[in-house]
Amino acid sequence: MADRGLAYGDGLFETIKVRHGQAALLERHLARLADGCQRLSIPCDLTLLTSELQAFMQQLGDGVCKLIITRGAGQRGYAMPDPCTPQRILQASALPQWPAVYAEQGVQLFNCQLRLAQQPLLAGLKHLNRLEQVLARAEWQDPAYAEGVLLDAQERVIDCVFSNIFIVQQQQLLTPSLHAAGVAGVMRAELLQRAENAGINVVVRDITLQQLLQADEVFTCNSLYGIWPVRHYRTQHWSVGSMTRKLQYLINDLVDGSPCYVS
Amino acid sequence: MADRGLAYGDGLFETIKVRHGQAALLERHLARLADGCQRLSIPCDLTLLTSELQAFMQQLGDGVCKLIITRGAGQRGYAMPDPCTPQRILQASALPQWPAVYAEQGVQLFNCQLRLAQQPLLAGLKHLNRLEQVLARAEWQDPAYAEGVLLDAQERVIDCVFSNIFIVQQQQLLTPSLHAAGVAGVMRAELLQRAENAGINVVVRDITLQQLLQADEVFTCNSLYGIWPVRHYRTQHWSVGSMTRKLQYLINDLVDGSPCYVS
Repeated sequence: MADRGLAYGDGLFETIKVRHGQAALLERHLARLADGCQRLSIPCDLTLLTSELQAFMQQLGDGVCKLIITRGAGQRGYAMPDPCTPQRILQASALPQWPAVYAEQGVQLFNCQLRLAQQPLLAGLKHLNRLEQVLARAEWQDPAYAEGVLLDAQERVIDCVFSNIFIVQQQQLLTPSLHAAGVAGVMRAELLQRAENAGINVVVRDITLQQLLQADEVFTCNSLYGIWPVRHYRTQHWSVGSMTRKLQYLINDLVDGSPCYVS
Repeated sequence: MADRGLAYGDGLFETIKVRHGQAALLERHLARLADGCQRLSIPCDLTLLTSELQAFMQQLGDGVCKLIITRGAGQRGYAMPDPCTPQRILQASALPQWPAVYAEQGVQLFNCQLRLAQQPLLAGLKHLNRLEQVLARAEWQDPAYAEGVLLDAQERVIDCVFSNIFIVQQQQLLTPSLHAAGVAGVMRAELLQRAENAGINVVVRDITLQQLLQADEVFTCNSLYGIWPVRHYRTQHWSVGSMTRKLQYLINDLVDGSPCYVS
């Protein structure tokens, strides 16, 4: 109860897809976690953590493993405890179930009114301060929208509530820079790498709302569902593009046979 | 463990000073909490909460009562659970101990480098997303600094790490508007009310760093320690001003005989 994870959201988490007791993209999850621990000055024994995680996933078999690391218990007040005894929490859940048409025919994105705040010291991290995502997700109930787009106060595109976003423009693959806001997803990183390996031009930079609306193709991604083509957002309609299909093919090993889609 | 307070910082808290089993500024704490619950769409039974709180404080006698309200347990994902079963958590601790000279002769404020992000949907609330305060408080270890000043990216003064800030300029009392960032402290609200009742001109508006540095008097406040005159910040030195002394006198009933100061 005195844990600073609860008191201040003083910690980080990872949501890891587990199949046959093995984590997908494990190295990327661990790398992001290590980076987050360093930036927040949370000591982290990655070797111990990895062995706990692997035992946990073996037992889980198939599902989602959520790993939370907090700064642990502290006295009253914001000052970091010294010494610090971080807490590691592992939670299992079933894979979420999405309609198979999301990946096949594309999704509609909700136009969230919330504007993400800019905090470079926290940008990119999957930390436990997620009230913005909670409020943004509460903006729509209509199941016709699979996800919602999040902009910042300058109308730059940042990400979606639980996904990253990519656009294709003139055969270039672009995704927003996350230097001031957003969560740097492991699937985003994996996609950038695999696209580059496949000879696709890859650009990470600020993307305006206008650039998103004028894109040739748009898709979202995360580590659980892979890639969803976007077929509608605000004024625009898209059909599923060839670059999006190619990238779905390139990450097929991470999604194929996955029980997270239902027909 | 599935509580959204831990998972997302999805909740609010109050830190209440308790003396002889009674809360100081109880109505203001409850009003802020009710406002926060409404803004975050967390259902809250204020009558039940108040009676639990009063029983808890009777038992505590003297100290600090921390009240946490979370949205409760939820399924995986950011969507708010429906129905929602909020959790109420009450924690007791001893009153912090500060040097008596802080209130008598004033404090030095650290010049925090972190810039508070602007999120109007969360501004003013004492919510559980407090990583900015954690990082800001970690910027200094030198006990010569009692508090640290927090600006936003436009170099506007917002508040301090665990206090609000006021300046005095030409006999006017000014404190930053918290429409886009900051925590609206209950002592801040009480001071604004008591100053107005005493015929002092009170202004709530944006305050620039320059205006702070050129102020006639500067002080910080919170509900536990009352008022600390500021004697040094960055390039400036102040002696304790007459308006600051007058306001200390006006809230004397909330601090007098308090065991939170040591000589």
